[in-house]
Amino acid sequence: MNEPTLLSLDDLRALIERALVRGGMSAENAGPVAETMLVCERDGVKSHGLLRLLGFVRSVQVGWANGRAQPRIVEMHASMCVIDADNGFAQVCLTLTRDRLMDMARATGVAILLTRNAHHYAALWPDIEPFADQGFIALSCVNSKKRMAAWGGTKPVTGTNALAFACPRADHPPMIWDQSSSVMSQGDVLLAANEGREVPPGVGCDADGAPTTSPSRILDGGALLPFGGHKGASIAVMVELLAAALTGAPFGFEDESPGATATTSKGGQFLLVVDPRRANLGFGERVNDLLAALVEAGTERLPGDRRYQRRSRALAEGIRITRAEHDSLLALANGAVPAR
Amino acid sequence: MNEPTLLSLDDLRALIERALVRGGMSAENAGPVAETMLVCERDGVKSHGLLRLLGFVRSVQVGWANGRAQPRIVEMHASMCVIDADNGFAQVCLTLTRDRLMDMARATGVAILLTRNAHHYAALWPDIEPFADQGFIALSCVNSKKRMAAWGGTKPVTGTNALAFACPRADHPPMIWDQSSSVMSQGDVLLAANEGREVPPGVGCDADGAPTTSPSRILDGGALLPFGGHKGASIAVMVELLAAALTGAPFGFEDESPGATATTSKGGQFLLVVDPRRANLGFGERVNDLLAALVEAGTERLPGDRRYQRRSRALAEGIRITRAEHDSLLALANGAVPAR
Repeated sequence: MNEPTLLSLDDLRALIERALVRGGMSAENAGPVAETMLVCERDGVKSHGLLRLLGFVRSVQVGWANGRAQPRIVEMHASMCVIDADNGFAQVCLTLTRDRLMDMARATGVAILLTRNAHHYAALWPDIEPFADQGFIALSCVNSKKRMAAWGGTKPVTGTNALAFACPRADHPPMIWDQSSSVMSQGDVLLAANEGREVPPGVGCDADGAPTTSPSRILDGGALLPFGGHKGASIAVMVELLAAALTGAPFGFEDESPGATATTSKGGQFLLVVDPRRANLGFGERVNDLLAALVEAGTERLPGDRRYQRRSRALAEGIRITRAEHDSLLALANGAVPAR
Repeated sequence: MNEPTLLSLDDLRALIERALVRGGMSAENAGPVAETMLVCERDGVKSHGLLRLLGFVRSVQVGWANGRAQPRIVEMHASMCVIDADNGFAQVCLTLTRDRLMDMARATGVAILLTRNAHHYAALWPDIEPFADQGFIALSCVNSKKRMAAWGGTKPVTGTNALAFACPRADHPPMIWDQSSSVMSQGDVLLAANEGREVPPGVGCDADGAPTTSPSRILDGGALLPFGGHKGASIAVMVELLAAALTGAPFGFEDESPGATATTSKGGQFLLVVDPRRANLGFGERVNDLLAALVEAGTERLPGDRRYQRRSRALAEGIRITRAEHDSLLALANGAVPAR
């Protein structure tokens, strides 16, 4: 009875898309969002897979995010595209502009995409991997609702502000990392709270700004802390400026999401694409040289290794989801209205 | 007798330039290198001021760095310039291309400069501040000789790989941060060793890869560690790829500097320049909004604040250097050959 359900990638994609469309999204909007959730499930990144589906549907149904967005390019220069997401999901903008960005980078060496008025709230590596697959370096970041203190402050100002980097390798899939700017994600702190566990020192502070290992004190008016002290805070502030100030999106502390009913954040996305073939030959071999030196020095696993292993298995065997996940997915795909 | 010497900025610049020229550099090469040292002294960043002069001269005199370099642009696209530093100092390449990069960014939205075959070995903020002064966002990084372990490894592979970010503010000087990817700089570990002090846990490991608080064990075949664990290591690896693999420069672990006689590292520099005016209006005001929110949340000092305070004083009063610094500077400017 509690055996997992095995689905093909195509079947799972179709179900997610149907659930998003029944939840109020247009097909054009549902496709890219479903693809991102699908590849997370495929690669075993459960935290950004089906787990997010209900939240996306809720955000659309309460009118906080626009599921029928019609993104509009507002500025286009030889190496810069600024796009207004029409309060929809950022992945839709990226799908619309991806080929053009690669053409721009091939022509000029570099391209940047600046997405404003957008909801992202997903992993970043699915956004940048397609560029590295085509031989480009890609760097992207998004800001999100305020949850983290920075530079000695004790109140949250920035989001946990993820930054991700992808580059091609010769004869290997791309090397990609994708990391938040906080020591620990909000999700992991929530999990610790639910399980009655303490979190390690350095993860957060309480409402008075005092260090605490109590997850509930961090979540209840306290703040997450950046990785690596003020240096990680510098990264978070840069992300906030690139993803919000530069694109024209709201800062994390300006987010006005209606609390429990909407789970996504309004913000922006910065994406840089560089064509290394315009600089010199053999970039992919040089990446391999560096990674080989790291492995020689003791690195046991490179970023993405586990994802690629799980992906191979999913491509061969299909994707296993729990019975509960499958039931919930089928219910949404059949038009169930999620509880508020 | 031990009173500091007060010099005007112009007098100090002229003395440094003369010392570099007497040390074997051409005037074209000495100018930008002297300017970087001067602004560090002006802003009170003693670690990258006159302290570096002797090392630069030594690196040139043993033939490790080329003090008469003639940089050559090897690729030029609408938004990308690749320059070969001819084994000279990176600051010379930047001075040659700065105006052109700003023109490129104004025209296309973005420009990147990729410098290969270069010596940097200085602070990065003097490189990027001029762009922010003109309204541009600038991001730069350099790699250096291997000193740091990454991603669970225990032997050094990358340098301490600095990354720096600058952006314009409305009615204020730019907000700039400039930070290494290690918890502590090699210089500070050396200082602790000389003074017989331990360093905090997490700064480095010994030759066997074991954590240690002994600076001499870290320096003697051990390794520095990245800030924030694997997340800081990700930044360091990205810097190594952008500054070396992308530009065509050697990696930190490929550096073959002749030990004690040469103090600079061969490597590369990556510089990204973005024109926010091509994306939307009011970027500088938005930067102010974010920084005001940070101050409101408890940040007492923003990056650069101390530099700007010291700068105001130096511009009004001149620069004080110690008698010993002045004597050494005068000797070099009069053609003394530094001891090996």
